[in-house]
Amino acid sequence: METEEIESRLREVLNPHRFEHTLGVSFTSASLAMRYEYDIKKARLAGLLHDCAKYMKGDELLLSAERYNLPVSKYERANPGLLHAKVGAYLAEHTYGVDDEEILSAIRFHTTGRPGMSLLEEIVFVADFIEPGRKELKCLPGIRKDAFIDIHRATLGELENTINYLKDKDANTDPATLETRDYYKKLILSE
Amino acid sequence: METEEIESRLREVLNPHRFEHTLGVSFTSASLAMRYEYDIKKARLAGLLHDCAKYMKGDELLLSAERYNLPVSKYERANPGLLHAKVGAYLAEHTYGVDDEEILSAIRFHTTGRPGMSLLEEIVFVADFIEPGRKELKCLPGIRKDAFIDIHRATLGELENTINYLKDKDANTDPATLETRDYYKKLILSE
Repeated sequence: METEEIESRLREVLNPHRFEHTLGVSFTSASLAMRYEYDIKKARLAGLLHDCAKYMKGDELLLSAERYNLPVSKYERANPGLLHAKVGAYLAEHTYGVDDEEILSAIRFHTTGRPGMSLLEEIVFVADFIEPGRKELKCLPGIRKDAFIDIHRATLGELENTINYLKDKDANTDPATLETRDYYKKLILSE
Repeated sequence: METEEIESRLREVLNPHRFEHTLGVSFTSASLAMRYEYDIKKARLAGLLHDCAKYMKGDELLLSAERYNLPVSKYERANPGLLHAKVGAYLAEHTYGVDDEEILSAIRFHTTGRPGMSLLEEIVFVADFIEPGRKELKCLPGIRKDAFIDIHRATLGELENTINYLKDKDANTDPATLETRDYYKKLILSE
């Protein structure tokens, strides 16, 4: 499917707010690709598709994950909304015809990240957090600037913010998020 | 006028290719604003409106410039297409209701730049050249990366590319472009 067609399909399935966020992530991914010399078209496409399953409710995502034989962790079973990343990667491949594993993987890991992310995975992970439509948080200006100077530092800032936010809400954090945070903390300390 | 309304008006008056370019410049301006700690909403809006008069033909732009009492240089009279910047700044104010002089000025100077540009002027000037939809030029990857590291260097790269392109075509260059190039060349040498 051509990028223009993907964009108009997404405009139909996502609500206007989600579609505007999608465009923001797509273009912010493109700018990060410029900065870190990654393929701009691939970054645009990965950003465009990162939330392609976000229109589904939790129970629908769980059913889809089971139907498509995707692995579901204990934490995801308790918080099935998170599965939009894995189900999204599946839809990107089977509905939107993307066969580039780097793009699929960037969609698959965009909510928790993972230790040792590829450049595209990190680009989409960070772009999702900093895109211009995001509600202003106190930490955001610093992370936005960092994103274009040292993407690992922005990744760590994002992870720490997410973990603190969940702690303040007395909510559990996905162990995958903690693992990713530990990796990037160590990486930055060793730099 | 709210940004959403401006966006849908522009989608109507500009052709699809120009509108896609407009979105690219708007979001790329937002990313540059993140990097250089400028107001992201203002950068988005300036990028969105930078080509708002681009749907007019040369003779129409000349007539509009005369009707609105805008100054027209000898070079612009010979190349009235360039007037889309000045006429665009006028429309941004009088049709789209923008009263922020920094935004209007970024629209007014986005084709030639000017010596000592404001940060927003430089952001829109560079974003117009590097946005993801731009046709690939040999110089583009370097200028795109520079844009997020040292915006003055990206500005100079863009000006030199434009001047060389016009020289190769045996076309004249707007003296304003040469003046801007000289300023940024000197600035970078003095750094």
